[in-house]
Amino acid sequence: MMNQPYDNNNVFAKILRGEIPAHKLYEDADTYAFMDVMPQGKGHCLAITKAPYRNMLDVEPAHLFAVVATTQKLARAVKKAFDADGVTVMQFNEPASGQTVFHLHFHVIPRFEGIPLKAHTGQMEDQTILAANAEKIRQALEQEG
Amino acid sequence: MMNQPYDNNNVFAKILRGEIPAHKLYEDADTYAFMDVMPQGKGHCLAITKAPYRNMLDVEPAHLFAVVATTQKLARAVKKAFDADGVTVMQFNEPASGQTVFHLHFHVIPRFEGIPLKAHTGQMEDQTILAANAEKIRQALEQEG
Repeated sequence: MMNQPYDNNNVFAKILRGEIPAHKLYEDADTYAFMDVMPQGKGHCLAITKAPYRNMLDVEPAHLFAVVATTQKLARAVKKAFDADGVTVMQFNEPASGQTVFHLHFHVIPRFEGIPLKAHTGQMEDQTILAANAEKIRQALEQEG
Repeated sequence: MMNQPYDNNNVFAKILRGEIPAHKLYEDADTYAFMDVMPQGKGHCLAITKAPYRNMLDVEPAHLFAVVATTQKLARAVKKAFDADGVTVMQFNEPASGQTVFHLHFHVIPRFEGIPLKAHTGQMEDQTILAANAEKIRQALEQEG
């Protein structure tokens, strides 16, 4: 199968290198998690691999499993942190599916009855709100252990 | 964390027990894959665990990794089978997120430039179309090896 190449200058690669700030939630040997700055809902966060994969079409199994384990941690943590009614997990592959940053990532979005997902507008969330929501998620992650 | 209990009479449990037919795509020791009968796009299919988990909030890691490995196989296969431009992967937890069958499943939907996802209308797709699309995906899975 032909896949697109990985571009080392995508924004998540820059976050991993510390060249762009992020509201960090979690980190382990193979994965990193942080707040989405253009959230589709309160507490929208992302789990990514540290290794340079474009998406699910090219990722190696060990790294895929690692990022999914982190996705599960986030799903449980956001449900608790925001007393959410549900959690939506999404993973996009290539522009036709909605992928805009070409580094493998899983979206984790707390959901509340009657509140639809917002569009990915390109509108940046207020940094103080992101920081406060990040703190709630980090606390929930610690409690989950 | 409090999770909802697993209901053995959900429709995917019935498919696994052979009580309801499905357009099967793939099966291994821990997972099963088949066509979504109310597709949000051409070739929309599902990967599920064989073990009885409600969603990502209660699944054990080994079963989560198994179903994600099958999800990856499907993502690669549908891209090839339909010459798709992209693939959307979604996984819903609890009704507020859109979950309607309470057995852990990953949606895998081939995507094409300019064609939005259809709503989950409850409208059943024609069985001959499902059968033809299933055959294309099975062939792509065989070629992927």
